[in-house]
Amino acid sequence: MTNAPRGHRPPHGAPVIDRAFALLGAFSATRRAMTLAELSRATGTPPSTALRLARRLLHWGALERDGGGRYVIGLRLWELASLAPRGHGLREAALPYMEDLYEATHQHVLLAVRDGHEALLVERLSARDAVDVLYRVGGRLPLHSTGVGLVLLAHAEPELQDQVLAEPLVHEPEGLPVSPAALRRTLARVRQTGLAVAERSEPGPLLTVAAPVRGADDGVVAALSVVVPASGAEPRALAPALRATARALSRSLGSPRAS
Amino acid sequence: MTNAPRGHRPPHGAPVIDRAFALLGAFSATRRAMTLAELSRATGTPPSTALRLARRLLHWGALERDGGGRYVIGLRLWELASLAPRGHGLREAALPYMEDLYEATHQHVLLAVRDGHEALLVERLSARDAVDVLYRVGGRLPLHSTGVGLVLLAHAEPELQDQVLAEPLVHEPEGLPVSPAALRRTLARVRQTGLAVAERSEPGPLLTVAAPVRGADDGVVAALSVVVPASGAEPRALAPALRATARALSRSLGSPRAS
Repeated sequence: MTNAPRGHRPPHGAPVIDRAFALLGAFSATRRAMTLAELSRATGTPPSTALRLARRLLHWGALERDGGGRYVIGLRLWELASLAPRGHGLREAALPYMEDLYEATHQHVLLAVRDGHEALLVERLSARDAVDVLYRVGGRLPLHSTGVGLVLLAHAEPELQDQVLAEPLVHEPEGLPVSPAALRRTLARVRQTGLAVAERSEPGPLLTVAAPVRGADDGVVAALSVVVPASGAEPRALAPALRATARALSRSLGSPRAS
Repeated sequence: MTNAPRGHRPPHGAPVIDRAFALLGAFSATRRAMTLAELSRATGTPPSTALRLARRLLHWGALERDGGGRYVIGLRLWELASLAPRGHGLREAALPYMEDLYEATHQHVLLAVRDGHEALLVERLSARDAVDVLYRVGGRLPLHSTGVGLVLLAHAEPELQDQVLAEPLVHEPEGLPVSPAALRRTLARVRQTGLAVAERSEPGPLLTVAAPVRGADDGVVAALSVVVPASGAEPRALAPALRATARALSRSLGSPRAS
């Protein structure tokens, strides 16, 4: 915490916002509800400060109490977040196209954007009896070992590619190391063919085919993929539907290349 | 703004959070991107303060800059909000069931929760060629004149029903006044039949049939509806599919009544 020039209050109020967002940031997919004591511990905030912050966040609807009185992320935050262009906005534009693809495959259709060195899953349409996938909407995926990730990495700026390739990379969930040279060849092939194909053997064998979605400046803004059981799947059969759908979505986003 | 006991800084830091959320709250469906000057004007915050707040919100990813340099709601806020149990959590549980209903109707399937005196649309599956609906995901709907709203109002606590009935109510978008006595009869019928049926003549005639979704304590946590063109639609034909789907979703949420 910064030392305030006068008294004990944070200068310019900035650290208060930081503490509030640290409190919100303590929530995760595996930690969706917390007591005040848990919030205090998770953020290293004294209980009295945590209580004061939590009260303001409750007031704004950024937090809510669940049936057991624990704090959870609030509906008002969700309402605000529905205005995020790269999250919900993109998802709204993409949903009808994803529906088309879903009706053709009846397994999983994924839409993801890049955020730093990861992909963020913006939407997933899944049949109830579809193969298990590891990712949830709002969750993060590795760039180097998923279909959508490979597409987003292949079209990222070269500096970012270099940074990702310099990291120790493994194929999740099998834990196999990834060779940077092989990954560079894969990325070149993704750019050349306009498609990424990825396979996963654990926990169940599946195949994913992914394609880039372009925006108004023709840059790649997202990646779209279908995920199907590996047995009997034929990437060449999935490719045309995926290409056509990604292109139609790109056109609806104003991509000059797709028009 | 509160007067700080010492100096010009807000006491206990609370107003800083309030200003930050006021800044975020200035964004809306019709105002998704703003310059700093617009943000400052919309919130009555001096430009220097707005800049300082906006910088912290950018730092946390609660805001982002779009291609034109304007501020928009950020991906990180969307990621956090994906953890909201009553927003995204419910939506994740409901989506497979909504897909079933969508495949049966191929028009619109809506899922909404109550927030105060309004309904908040949590999910909408829509065919590209479906009839026009007025509502977007993350948007608000009136309780007294929509299918999902009537279901949520019918199962709200009596005090809230009294408050809503005491307001001057009109049928949107036609602008017809609603009689409180007629609305009370409608709500009783919704509770009795387990379904709400609503019609709209403008901008295009459509019919909606809605049913309650119950949670683990058997309380109504959401409402599910189908919206179809009024011409040729038969509520009695839609009712069984809607009832069955709402019941299946309630069971998956742990409702003892549906099991």
